[in-house]
Amino acid sequence: MATPSPGNSITLRVEAPSSFTATSELAAAVAAAGAAVTALDVTESHHERLVVDVTCNTTDDAHAVRVREALDALDGVTVRQVSDRTFLMHLGGKLEVVPKVALRNRDDLSRAYTPGVARVCMAIAEDPGAARNLTIKRNTIAVVTDGSAVLGLGNIGPAAALPVMEGKAALFKQFANVDAWPVCLDTQDTEEIIMIVKALAPVYGGVNLEDIAAPRCFEIEKRLRDELDIPVFHDDQHGTAIVTLAALTNALRVVDKKIGDVKIVVAGVGAAGNAIIQLLIAQGAVNVIACGRKGAINRSETYTDTHRTWLAENTNPDNFTGTLHEAVAGADVFIGVSGPNVLGEEQVASMAKDSIIFAMANPTPEVDPAIASKYAAVVATGRSDFPNQINNVLAFPGFFRGLLDAGVSDITDEMLVAAAGAIAARVADDELNASFIVPSVFDQQVAGDVATAVAAAAGHHS
Amino acid sequence: MATPSPGNSITLRVEAPSSFTATSELAAAVAAAGAAVTALDVTESHHERLVVDVTCNTTDDAHAVRVREALDALDGVTVRQVSDRTFLMHLGGKLEVVPKVALRNRDDLSRAYTPGVARVCMAIAEDPGAARNLTIKRNTIAVVTDGSAVLGLGNIGPAAALPVMEGKAALFKQFANVDAWPVCLDTQDTEEIIMIVKALAPVYGGVNLEDIAAPRCFEIEKRLRDELDIPVFHDDQHGTAIVTLAALTNALRVVDKKIGDVKIVVAGVGAAGNAIIQLLIAQGAVNVIACGRKGAINRSETYTDTHRTWLAENTNPDNFTGTLHEAVAGADVFIGVSGPNVLGEEQVASMAKDSIIFAMANPTPEVDPAIASKYAAVVATGRSDFPNQINNVLAFPGFFRGLLDAGVSDITDEMLVAAAGAIAARVADDELNASFIVPSVFDQQVAGDVATAVAAAAGHHS
Repeated sequence: MATPSPGNSITLRVEAPSSFTATSELAAAVAAAGAAVTALDVTESHHERLVVDVTCNTTDDAHAVRVREALDALDGVTVRQVSDRTFLMHLGGKLEVVPKVALRNRDDLSRAYTPGVARVCMAIAEDPGAARNLTIKRNTIAVVTDGSAVLGLGNIGPAAALPVMEGKAALFKQFANVDAWPVCLDTQDTEEIIMIVKALAPVYGGVNLEDIAAPRCFEIEKRLRDELDIPVFHDDQHGTAIVTLAALTNALRVVDKKIGDVKIVVAGVGAAGNAIIQLLIAQGAVNVIACGRKGAINRSETYTDTHRTWLAENTNPDNFTGTLHEAVAGADVFIGVSGPNVLGEEQVASMAKDSIIFAMANPTPEVDPAIASKYAAVVATGRSDFPNQINNVLAFPGFFRGLLDAGVSDITDEMLVAAAGAIAARVADDELNASFIVPSVFDQQVAGDVATAVAAAAGHHS
Repeated sequence: MATPSPGNSITLRVEAPSSFTATSELAAAVAAAGAAVTALDVTESHHERLVVDVTCNTTDDAHAVRVREALDALDGVTVRQVSDRTFLMHLGGKLEVVPKVALRNRDDLSRAYTPGVARVCMAIAEDPGAARNLTIKRNTIAVVTDGSAVLGLGNIGPAAALPVMEGKAALFKQFANVDAWPVCLDTQDTEEIIMIVKALAPVYGGVNLEDIAAPRCFEIEKRLRDELDIPVFHDDQHGTAIVTLAALTNALRVVDKKIGDVKIVVAGVGAAGNAIIQLLIAQGAVNVIACGRKGAINRSETYTDTHRTWLAENTNPDNFTGTLHEAVAGADVFIGVSGPNVLGEEQVASMAKDSIIFAMANPTPEVDPAIASKYAAVVATGRSDFPNQINNVLAFPGFFRGLLDAGVSDITDEMLVAAAGAIAARVADDELNASFIVPSVFDQQVAGDVATAVAAAAGHHS
């Protein structure tokens, strides 16, 4: 059963008969309809009637209709208008492009634009490295998608992906003062995407790939890393891997186990699963079993794609063959980046003592966290309405801040590990417990700490 | 001889012996070296010595060195540091990407980003037209260049072109609240450029092509106009044509001639020349002679390119054959979009009574405006240090404001003519004279008037 969410917040403008109890009756009716009232403002008060704006969280559009009907059914009450606060927030888009220099008069214009700008252009033509200091390249990254794997919505295309990319860009600016620009490409051809991003590169100091379907995303990322001299990050892979490693680091602190000793089962071998496993191994994990739809990836089978082949060769030391359900028996850690409800209560109960469960599928986790927490010592999800939200926002703004500050051209595993360490370290020993293994996404210091750690890992001890 | 310009403004930090006349001696030395002092600030005053910041306009880098040497040569004076104010203004770039929505807490995040944003994405997936209201597309345009014909600097490439595109974007925002983003492409292949701009289109409500060399620019513009459902404008063509027509409209008012009656010679048949001639004809000009490097375009010759062929068929009604110098004899109007010093005093003197000369080559005009004004009734250039600057800034911000406001998908000649009319009309009858045929680029009302005229021409009488 979904709970009312601020993502489904509506404001109803309601006309009601004037009375001492009018507003409390409206609030009671909204609550009785299952919505959560967050604000109630009397906007007009007349002798006979009131106009009241009732704002409440609902579960979905159908629920919003039921709330409206519940109010309309009250004696003498009329709902004039319902506005969806989420849609209001997106009207006209969420970004603007603002000059950093004032153009007040002829002299300003002569320096920022013609004729003065010509000298700046020539300085870059003579020394291409000067572009980093004399243009927006120094602080600007591209957020690139083809709209093929957007959130949990699938292949909705570049136009429908734009609200997500705008939101991402807003987070980059707000959390780390990185200027990020959405690039939503109307092509899903691997070679075209690679060619286009390379052609766009002069303006950018980094590329954040976003919501591009596997396996295309692997090839695009690899080729761009090889062929560009600016860092290329795939948030669905590396951002997720950083925050997962940070959360696991702290979960292991809670249960007092070591990453080299534990048995870890990862469900899902797409973009996120692959990156998580690579980073866990880089950090010292030994006994990792990757499970796809057909069960554990193992060396008794032959795989046609390079990623499963790599997993077979580098994970599963005992060459376990079997299903996901069989794999989790006795496991210390379950990490799910797959789909809804792949585990039941029986499987959770079969795990080792003091088990750790990260059920990160969105919006419906791999296992109901309420059930998981009956057996596991630590449970985390990708959702904000449970404790321990594993949210990439903890990683990507600070990570790119560090890359830009240090002038990095290639991302290394050391930088990813350093970022995870910085996030984990934001939870002090006296704060750490099973319900608080990652800092709040609104922790003001996370991004700065991540940036410093990344720049240090890059050899620039800033 | 170049005059000192604010585009070459420097600040010299100078240490000088304390005395009543120290600052005036510094100012005198700078003036004697040919620079124009614009500010003089004493930043430190000690018993024995002063530290003074002297800001002055110079003509170029070599001149700045001479100014420094002149100060160093004064008794007891040392120049500590010279800063170039133009470069300082460009440090770190001239644009930033700023969220229009605050992300202060979990509720904000839930609406602007996940999970709330998913509903906005799905609304666009179901109705692609909704993107215009729910994303930045409504107010955002791409400023696209391949760096092949930047200002008068030539083919300096995409990185070196970026400072110009940033300046352009800043002007779009400042003058017309249009969000413009620089797209500097690391390719000069016509088909690649077309493919890339089409792929980028989901984010943008319009495309401003900029500083792309002819003839490539014609093909790119035409194809994009055919294949995209958002307006495509080539500022070097259409922006220049609009402002030229506006200036000519008012110059003809000054000399009391009619556009249908005058003989007009256009020097230069590149991007700007072609667009100017097309717009003059759309506005009623009849006797137009286009001159390339080999003289007048005429019907006795055969041309291999479509643009010269079109010019031969649609201009030069008397089929004049001859050089530019021969063509201007008896002409009422000369419009130069070619190169420096193609006309001398003799040619200017050979024009009709009350002639009009627009010598728009930058930085050196087709004819010295001081010489031109000995004979012509009205003289205009592209430079800010003479009267009547023909500057595209008068056109492009308001033009795109109008396109976006009216939701235009295709630009028509009527819109270009309407924009020119709006610019011309900003000069009232009692302001109009031979030295004031176009409004100031800082006239606050030009952009709004142009936008209104363009939207009205689009059939949206806003």
